[in-house]
Amino acid sequence: GGAEHTRIRRAVVEAIECDPVFSRENQYFQSQNERYEAAVRKAVHLQKKMHEMGWTENGPEFKYIYRTLSGDIAFLLHHIFMRSISVLGSDKQIAKWIPLATRYQLIGSYAQTELGHGTYLQGLETTAVFDITTQEFILNTPKISAMKWWPGDMGRSATHTVVFAQLYVHGKCYGVHPFIVQIRSLQDHSLCPGITAGDIGPKMNFEHVDNGYLMLQNVRVPRENMLNKFCEVQPDGTYVRRGSQKINYFTMTTVRISLVSDEVIIPLMKACTIAIRYSVVRRQSKLKPGEEEAKILDYQTQQEKLLPQLAAAYAFHFISDYLQELFNRGYGEIQRKNFDMLPELHAFSSGFKAMITHYCTSAVEICLRACGGHGYSLLSGLPSLYTKILASCIYEGENTILLLQTARFLIKCFMAASAGQPSVTYLAAVKPGKCPAKNKLDFLSPDIYTEAYQHMAARLISSTAAKLQDLIQSGVKKHDAWNQCTVQLVQAAKAHCHYITVKNFAETVEKLKTQAGIQKIMKHLCDLFALHGIFSNAGLFLHDGYISGAQMDMVTASYLDLLAVIRKDAVPLVDAFDFTDKSLNSALGCYDGQVYQRLYEWAQKSPTNKQMSPAYERYLKPLLHNTPSKL
Amino acid sequence: GGAEHTRIRRAVVEAIECDPVFSRENQYFQSQNERYEAAVRKAVHLQKKMHEMGWTENGPEFKYIYRTLSGDIAFLLHHIFMRSISVLGSDKQIAKWIPLATRYQLIGSYAQTELGHGTYLQGLETTAVFDITTQEFILNTPKISAMKWWPGDMGRSATHTVVFAQLYVHGKCYGVHPFIVQIRSLQDHSLCPGITAGDIGPKMNFEHVDNGYLMLQNVRVPRENMLNKFCEVQPDGTYVRRGSQKINYFTMTTVRISLVSDEVIIPLMKACTIAIRYSVVRRQSKLKPGEEEAKILDYQTQQEKLLPQLAAAYAFHFISDYLQELFNRGYGEIQRKNFDMLPELHAFSSGFKAMITHYCTSAVEICLRACGGHGYSLLSGLPSLYTKILASCIYEGENTILLLQTARFLIKCFMAASAGQPSVTYLAAVKPGKCPAKNKLDFLSPDIYTEAYQHMAARLISSTAAKLQDLIQSGVKKHDAWNQCTVQLVQAAKAHCHYITVKNFAETVEKLKTQAGIQKIMKHLCDLFALHGIFSNAGLFLHDGYISGAQMDMVTASYLDLLAVIRKDAVPLVDAFDFTDKSLNSALGCYDGQVYQRLYEWAQKSPTNKQMSPAYERYLKPLLHNTPSKL
Repeated sequence: GGAEHTRIRRAVVEAIECDPVFSRENQYFQSQNERYEAAVRKAVHLQKKMHEMGWTENGPEFKYIYRTLSGDIAFLLHHIFMRSISVLGSDKQIAKWIPLATRYQLIGSYAQTELGHGTYLQGLETTAVFDITTQEFILNTPKISAMKWWPGDMGRSATHTVVFAQLYVHGKCYGVHPFIVQIRSLQDHSLCPGITAGDIGPKMNFEHVDNGYLMLQNVRVPRENMLNKFCEVQPDGTYVRRGSQKINYFTMTTVRISLVSDEVIIPLMKACTIAIRYSVVRRQSKLKPGEEEAKILDYQTQQEKLLPQLAAAYAFHFISDYLQELFNRGYGEIQRKNFDMLPELHAFSSGFKAMITHYCTSAVEICLRACGGHGYSLLSGLPSLYTKILASCIYEGENTILLLQTARFLIKCFMAASAGQPSVTYLAAVKPGKCPAKNKLDFLSPDIYTEAYQHMAARLISSTAAKLQDLIQSGVKKHDAWNQCTVQLVQAAKAHCHYITVKNFAETVEKLKTQAGIQKIMKHLCDLFALHGIFSNAGLFLHDGYISGAQMDMVTASYLDLLAVIRKDAVPLVDAFDFTDKSLNSALGCYDGQVYQRLYEWAQKSPTNKQMSPAYERYLKPLLHNTPSKL
Repeated sequence: GGAEHTRIRRAVVEAIECDPVFSRENQYFQSQNERYEAAVRKAVHLQKKMHEMGWTENGPEFKYIYRTLSGDIAFLLHHIFMRSISVLGSDKQIAKWIPLATRYQLIGSYAQTELGHGTYLQGLETTAVFDITTQEFILNTPKISAMKWWPGDMGRSATHTVVFAQLYVHGKCYGVHPFIVQIRSLQDHSLCPGITAGDIGPKMNFEHVDNGYLMLQNVRVPRENMLNKFCEVQPDGTYVRRGSQKINYFTMTTVRISLVSDEVIIPLMKACTIAIRYSVVRRQSKLKPGEEEAKILDYQTQQEKLLPQLAAAYAFHFISDYLQELFNRGYGEIQRKNFDMLPELHAFSSGFKAMITHYCTSAVEICLRACGGHGYSLLSGLPSLYTKILASCIYEGENTILLLQTARFLIKCFMAASAGQPSVTYLAAVKPGKCPAKNKLDFLSPDIYTEAYQHMAARLISSTAAKLQDLIQSGVKKHDAWNQCTVQLVQAAKAHCHYITVKNFAETVEKLKTQAGIQKIMKHLCDLFALHGIFSNAGLFLHDGYISGAQMDMVTASYLDLLAVIRKDAVPLVDAFDFTDKSLNSALGCYDGQVYQRLYEWAQKSPTNKQMSPAYERYLKPLLHNTPSKL
């Protein structure tokens, strides 16, 4: 992001890391309760710190604060609460609630998901019935599956939340709408009348977040508490809509785009840093007899595990910038009440969220496994990166469902052929053909591989569209036909996103012309990312003969050659991510290579080593009591 | 395993599950310390229970005890300690140590892995120097990377361990040998002189195991403490070897084979049970407009996630029986000092351990993700199954290294062509060819797909062997050439194991002729397992045109058809694994389908819901203190 951003980032990192309140030193030894309390402490302290440092929520420092804290902080849903009011609330609502929230005079949450209902929002069961006599909405949880479940900051912290509920006026259902509801007393934090709420218990990660449950029993909120920028219930019960109903989902769209960079790509970068640094310290077996044991990164198999993940981290970093730009443009249009870009934004944010979270989760797992036993120790930092990133495959839309939404958009564009959106015009030009590569070096040409990805994506989309039409023409009902194609539709949506990522990486590299040194190594990474994808999904490229078996051997050869080339720059490439030891919080990823000393030091701090276990007196001693003292 | 085994198993399950000491009710809420103490308590109680019930370690009940306890028990390494003495110890050593261990007059462990050294045993750095004057071995940890690290039961419990160390006699190194070493006092459990030991801290799972570290400083053990069935240091320092040196690794070979069934296949079966039961309770979105929301297992994408994992659980169950039989034969030979089968046993145990653990780990992760957010809650039981099975990819030999050992064996057999071992004779008959299938039904013929796997495995092995030879002939040094082929060698070894698994599944189904109903559904699962493998690894089959693009479309069609067929029997197929609710310990996998009620009930028991958090008084109250009481 340039020298100025780096300066700001490093200043933030320094200010936070030298402050003991933000220490993550004991993170791997803490219980869920301790993690939650630390997260609240940090969140509260952060307010002071920001004031002290002159940082603001809209300032350039903000994203670096979050990065430096590794997300290990409370009240993140408070920001989603604010964002949903900013996007969905009227000017009057914004004027009332945003200042209160900004000053933390209330703590907000965002209550959408229910115990029985996730990504399919239309299925939500919580009800909000308009009572014309009191000008209030009456909110209820009609059955157990309608209980709100998972909202962050809600289990113990929040005083308010945005509840998504089915709106009923005069007995008619108008679908899901958002309502601001107070859940805890501002005096003593006790639950408000009609509210049942608490913490949903232990999870794979996010121990620091009080994900909560919430039941509502005849909870009344004033008419003004329905967020009403885009639709409103008037005092007489008239329902008025302004703009698309889909705008309700827009908060999720924006969240999906920002989570990709903050919650997904950064963990992958950290995992690569840890695993690659460890792989030049760890030695195992001999490459040549008589020599000392080799660094494990000198083994082709280890390179093949880690270097494609490093390339992916860069690929996704660049595509995330591209998505952010696309989103900024779209958001501008929506502010002007032009909703034309909504379908494309929704399709893109869904597909890329799913593709990138899935890819990065596997990538972090590969990094973890590539560190052998030590990767399995929490002290390596890798298990917590993995268990955290895994959640991103599920929250803010389950990946399979998201990919199917992207597929629906692609099929629609394909059917409309030339009338498609600019990003998918390639679908209009599907034709059979053969890859023109003649030798392995040809596969280092971005034109060659980008074309191959384009061909493959277009083929999957067109052949699935054809299957769909065949089924419908043969008399299968439309919905059954769709269901029978979904495995292939998912494949097609992934292929589309993969293609766009490769294309964007190649174009980004092209633009680096002024920085020859960086361009050269980025070109290698781009080639590696692209060829790894062909090598790992060979069937998709071989299927119609676009790439022949002999050409696939060339791909494999170039791919394996690249590993040895990039191996040389692997350490500087992870150093470029510029994580401090503290932010990695890993005994394996340290700069100084003192991995074993650090593992030993950290292990000694474990509560399991604090004293002799009571298990000895209780169980072992009686067991061993009649053993002869000398064996 | 037949009616009699089922009766014994159920009796064991009942006896254990009705005993409150063995309860796993609070498992998901406990700290590492609490888990360890519970595991010790259970292990000690189990001794009494076994005595009470008349169960013995060699009886038919034993494996069911372990299964019922879900491995959540201490002193498992005590059994490995005993096994290594039984395999590697002389009759005299067995007579001395086994009775002591059987009566728990000592607690044993197995100290092989070091901080800096894992699967490459020759690299171990701990030393054992023979002192002829005192007739003792002097054991030392020369540097930090030589510290023993990971041995289970060693961090807090063990009094003794088998230490693997480089043997030196008269200054000459004879390689790695096993020594029995006492590490803790039998009086008060304090560390013995020269011993530093403790717990290595938190891990992704195995909180109940006190994986430990151990440093030795001039620790002396008598000459008789070197396990000496196969080699011995005589009083004058003469070193005598009887049989193969490789026998030292044989304990690991046996452990690898038993861990596949106990630690890998059972977790997968449980994960399938939980995810499939949940998928017929959970409803989401509508398949047909106007109908109620559909069970998620009725979606093709959900079937495609879960049913291949179910088929894999059966496939691996059958191959595990096959391996156990192969091993029993081999072990008989070794007892008769015939070591001919060792290379094959080693290659098989390595390759299948790696292939099956890798496959099952991914499979459990798929089950977890397929349950959406609730799969991510510890209360689902899936996170702990996943984090536990993941370890199996690393322990008892890192998978990549194991696969390369299998590959080395395969390449050797291939080079020797007809002289190969019976299990790999197919390698002698590699020839080009085309798959004869004409329509999608042909791909439901085991001959067709088994042949395809065989062809594919043979092609990968032969083409990699050819690449290796080409490199060597072009002047690349042998070790470099090997390294440059390792990515493909790993692929070849996996392909071999995959082929044998498919073949064995098909043969097992064939033998079920007398049970037509079971045979029919097993045939479907076998077909699914095989076609899923072709669909997911399409490139390997398309590469040389053995399967054409058009045939791959037939594979895909048959594969997707099978999903809908097996969907109907999915619930009985997991019920056949016969896990009780208690042994699943999952809020999602319950028989009665009361998933949401159970999640809510369990969540309320979480320590995070025990009282108002001190974080309120300390942080939230001051933050909210100037909020107007009514907003």
